[in-house]
Amino acid sequence: MSGMEETGLQLRSLIKASGELEISLVDVPTPEPRSDELVVRIEATPTNPSDLGLLTGAADLSTIRASGTKDRPIITAKVPEAAMPAMAGRLDQSVPIGFEGAGVVIKTGSSDAAKALMGRTVATFGGAMYAQYRCLKIGDCLPLPDGTTPAEGASCFVNPLTALGMIETMRAEGHTALVHTAAASNLGQMLSKICLKDDISLVNIVRSTEQAAILRKMGAKHVIDSTTATFTNELTAALVESGATIAFDAIGGRKVASQILSAMEAAINKSGKYPYSRYGSTVHKQVYVYGTLDPQPTEITRSFGTAWGLGGWLLMPFLVKIGQAGEQRLRQRVVDELKTTFASHYTKVVSLAEALDPTNMESYFKRATGEKFLINPNKGK
Amino acid sequence: MSGMEETGLQLRSLIKASGELEISLVDVPTPEPRSDELVVRIEATPTNPSDLGLLTGAADLSTIRASGTKDRPIITAKVPEAAMPAMAGRLDQSVPIGFEGAGVVIKTGSSDAAKALMGRTVATFGGAMYAQYRCLKIGDCLPLPDGTTPAEGASCFVNPLTALGMIETMRAEGHTALVHTAAASNLGQMLSKICLKDDISLVNIVRSTEQAAILRKMGAKHVIDSTTATFTNELTAALVESGATIAFDAIGGRKVASQILSAMEAAINKSGKYPYSRYGSTVHKQVYVYGTLDPQPTEITRSFGTAWGLGGWLLMPFLVKIGQAGEQRLRQRVVDELKTTFASHYTKVVSLAEALDPTNMESYFKRATGEKFLINPNKGK
Repeated sequence: MSGMEETGLQLRSLIKASGELEISLVDVPTPEPRSDELVVRIEATPTNPSDLGLLTGAADLSTIRASGTKDRPIITAKVPEAAMPAMAGRLDQSVPIGFEGAGVVIKTGSSDAAKALMGRTVATFGGAMYAQYRCLKIGDCLPLPDGTTPAEGASCFVNPLTALGMIETMRAEGHTALVHTAAASNLGQMLSKICLKDDISLVNIVRSTEQAAILRKMGAKHVIDSTTATFTNELTAALVESGATIAFDAIGGRKVASQILSAMEAAINKSGKYPYSRYGSTVHKQVYVYGTLDPQPTEITRSFGTAWGLGGWLLMPFLVKIGQAGEQRLRQRVVDELKTTFASHYTKVVSLAEALDPTNMESYFKRATGEKFLINPNKGK
Repeated sequence: MSGMEETGLQLRSLIKASGELEISLVDVPTPEPRSDELVVRIEATPTNPSDLGLLTGAADLSTIRASGTKDRPIITAKVPEAAMPAMAGRLDQSVPIGFEGAGVVIKTGSSDAAKALMGRTVATFGGAMYAQYRCLKIGDCLPLPDGTTPAEGASCFVNPLTALGMIETMRAEGHTALVHTAAASNLGQMLSKICLKDDISLVNIVRSTEQAAILRKMGAKHVIDSTTATFTNELTAALVESGATIAFDAIGGRKVASQILSAMEAAINKSGKYPYSRYGSTVHKQVYVYGTLDPQPTEITRSFGTAWGLGGWLLMPFLVKIGQAGEQRLRQRVVDELKTTFASHYTKVVSLAEALDPTNMESYFKRATGEKFLINPNKGK
């Protein structure tokens, strides 16, 4: 490690008790790796919705102001007073960002296992990846096959494991097919590829003809546009055909979860497999909300009997539930299919400073389908 | 069985394809009991919400009209067109009513087990109890201890097993205390008595000072009135003290489930037992909706992390889940404590014809706390 790598830039987000958000770049010293640690030069880290949520907290994005210099930009914004209680746990703490990333091992600890990874490209997770250098435990790094770039390995964890986690949850809870909303997202395309490969029936719900086209082009069978007048009928028909009784919903707000539960019940009754009961069918119908594209309240019209559930779903508790062996099995599949099933696509690669350009921020906060930014903290170096 | 018992009156509810509800009394022949069957003269059968739901279906109660004679009254009402699809499964069928009841065995089949029950007072379930005579399998009858009246045994199943089912569900899903809404109901008072006896922390949510007084008089510790300005704070404090992370909600509509989940999360964070996480606490919070006192949509403001669930809960699937041995254990407890923990209170006893008096119908459909009608199909005979 040469002198210039003894410190590196790290992106930090601070919400002050005064209600001001401040995002900036700070110099942090790169720790000396212990025997089982590696120093990784981070070259690719994605902008997942969960990262963006931590980046700006509850700040009102329409109040964003840029100051500082080109190399050391500072972004400020106001957090509405009503949202401050929800920020209590992070007030006046300078929080690093970036759950996952990938880069090259430039220094290792003294153990043989660590030394063996010198120069290798690794995917890694555990936070603070919006940084030029990270000192990490071997166990938190996933060596990538030769010929894999950091950009290709940047999103090895969140989206792939979430998509695989949905399939695992579906099976563990006794369902045989599933529904996904916001289905043309990066994650949704990944889930679609898994289902096509594994021959699992997936009902994709999208919100535009453009999104529908993306999935149809991939070969997806059931693609339903919720903005059309025929939505309910098409959804019910797809549910009869697929037999899906579990859904993963990225939207969360308003009526979509309720519409899915109602359509599932209608499909179960149409299937002719179950006797009529005025309490509703006895087939359990489940919707898991895993995202918040619509922060409005969820509105449930209880017209689908009593065998139903709605709940939150998050990757980390799921991984805890399946244990280390289960997680290892899923990770191995991700590495094996990184350039096919689990390939991510990015529309723009930016440096840490460029990530704080208000125009870029506006783009990546739009969360438009098909648009995704990748940060290379060492871009141009 | 003398000649006059060869047929008996039975209450029937019919929704015609034309959208008219018709409730009437019909003569039905009393079947000859098979070897393992009993003929029971029904002397007490309650008006549970689920019975009332089946009685009038989706009819608009403001359109009720009475006709027929004093002994053979007929009630008609209109089902709104928008509600007709939900009635599809029962159209043009003359449906008997009354899930549970109690009475005296007046004739038996030829088996020794049947003969042994001649003259005994039994509780029974399985539908069509709004009738003067029922021919029933021995297994569907629960012989009551000597000195127990049919009125005392009329509600042996639905409310007692539902209350016990809530406690069993709480334990099976790893919770140690529970929340109940509409807590001053007949069922709620029963649950309160069980919890006091078994030393289980119960947080009772009521909607008036009168309801609160009923529970406080019984010795209930946590009684919170949701109509007061201090509701959220009091609920949170009771949740901190009790540690309740599961709720059973009879209301269903609007915000109560969401308020309970939010207060649970606030209580978990206040307890100081868990580290802060921006994804919310990792403690699973559950609300089961088992009633529909408010038919409006359920409105969930997702501000309590991702470890939460909302779902339907119904007695029958629960009993299937715990199996015959489990159900038998619960039933035995009900019989053992029928005059104490599981005592029901009725404000008025009516005949089948009187049950169809519009003034009486208005009273029992109000579902006012503390008011409950008992039907004696053999009243005055």
